[in-house]
Amino acid sequence: MERHFDEELKELHKGILRMGAMAQEAIFKSTEALKSWDKNLAQGVIDADDKIDTLELSIDELCIDLIARHQPMATDLRLITTGMKINAELERIADLAVDISQRVLELVDKPLLKPLVDIPKLSFIAQEMVKGSIDAFVKKDAGMARKVVLSDAQADELRNLVQKELVEDYMVKDGKTADRAVPLLLISRHLERICDHATNIAEDVIYLVEAKVVKHHPEELS
Amino acid sequence: MERHFDEELKELHKGILRMGAMAQEAIFKSTEALKSWDKNLAQGVIDADDKIDTLELSIDELCIDLIARHQPMATDLRLITTGMKINAELERIADLAVDISQRVLELVDKPLLKPLVDIPKLSFIAQEMVKGSIDAFVKKDAGMARKVVLSDAQADELRNLVQKELVEDYMVKDGKTADRAVPLLLISRHLERICDHATNIAEDVIYLVEAKVVKHHPEELS
Repeated sequence: MERHFDEELKELHKGILRMGAMAQEAIFKSTEALKSWDKNLAQGVIDADDKIDTLELSIDELCIDLIARHQPMATDLRLITTGMKINAELERIADLAVDISQRVLELVDKPLLKPLVDIPKLSFIAQEMVKGSIDAFVKKDAGMARKVVLSDAQADELRNLVQKELVEDYMVKDGKTADRAVPLLLISRHLERICDHATNIAEDVIYLVEAKVVKHHPEELS
Repeated sequence: MERHFDEELKELHKGILRMGAMAQEAIFKSTEALKSWDKNLAQGVIDADDKIDTLELSIDELCIDLIARHQPMATDLRLITTGMKINAELERIADLAVDISQRVLELVDKPLLKPLVDIPKLSFIAQEMVKGSIDAFVKKDAGMARKVVLSDAQADELRNLVQKELVEDYMVKDGKTADRAVPLLLISRHLERICDHATNIAEDVIYLVEAKVVKHHPEELS
């Protein structure tokens, strides 16, 4: 017996929520690994990525299968193709948590260069943005999505701050800090890119709900 | 009168080829801007990105429209959803060329830190990989796509080489080089990420042609 379309759409939502939760967990753990200099935790994030990749593929298959069997018209079709895009963004977000964990493995065993405070703050923003963007999708809430898009400026600013400090206050003053400063600088960039992916998701949600293109059109945000 | 499905598929191919050519041009020009310290050329890449974004949106619309009007079954549907994915990858590639150009603007007016040789080499590999992956899609040639995937290791290696040299031979020896070394290091990472996106495209093509998942399964490459 063929299942009802709405029921299968719920499966898609559930899958995306699960991907979102796994991506958030990966960001959280990679940052904890950095804060606590914990090699095992960092390695755990790297090892868990396979599961996220498998889930991505199965959600992708579910979407194609949904379209092929139900041949949905405009609105539902757009919902599914948006789901496919969000799925891909979440997989990239998890990859970036793997990148962070790899930087942690490069840093571990070396003395800590500077208090990390801005980096965990940036990680917190990244996690909130990922969560907000997924919630916005599931609830089809364009207002919530707009808040995510607007948070991105704060993430950019923090990333620039971290980078400026690492270059000017550490590397320029003492070149020998470079092998510890560069991985931290890259971690701040990985986190900021996670925020960019969350922004992409939020922009897709706004387009889905309002058929308004805010991607590359910041004036449509207000 | 409704147009024939195959004819519209050709439109999709043409659109992807155009996106591919624009993305390649952006990589080429951003690297030329770096080599010739040319502010205007770098700014030109940044300004041209709007056009690429507009083309991305119109290809996306074409894909959704194709699915909605023709309700294609399995193979054709997968061809279109792959086209949507490739389209998104190409837009990211062009964004990375913008990132490179922004780094060039940060560097310009400062004395050149080191001979660039490895960076233009990495840029050449990136352009070849993008071209190869798009050709593989249009010709549905999994062999060509495999070659792209296999090139990625070379790109990783070059990126690591550039990074190691900048840290060990420049920043550690003289911290004052950091503000010139960091943008170069980031450019090598932007280029390597372009190669990753080309690899994603090639993996999508292999999946399309052979229904084999090579993404995250390197053993399927041989």
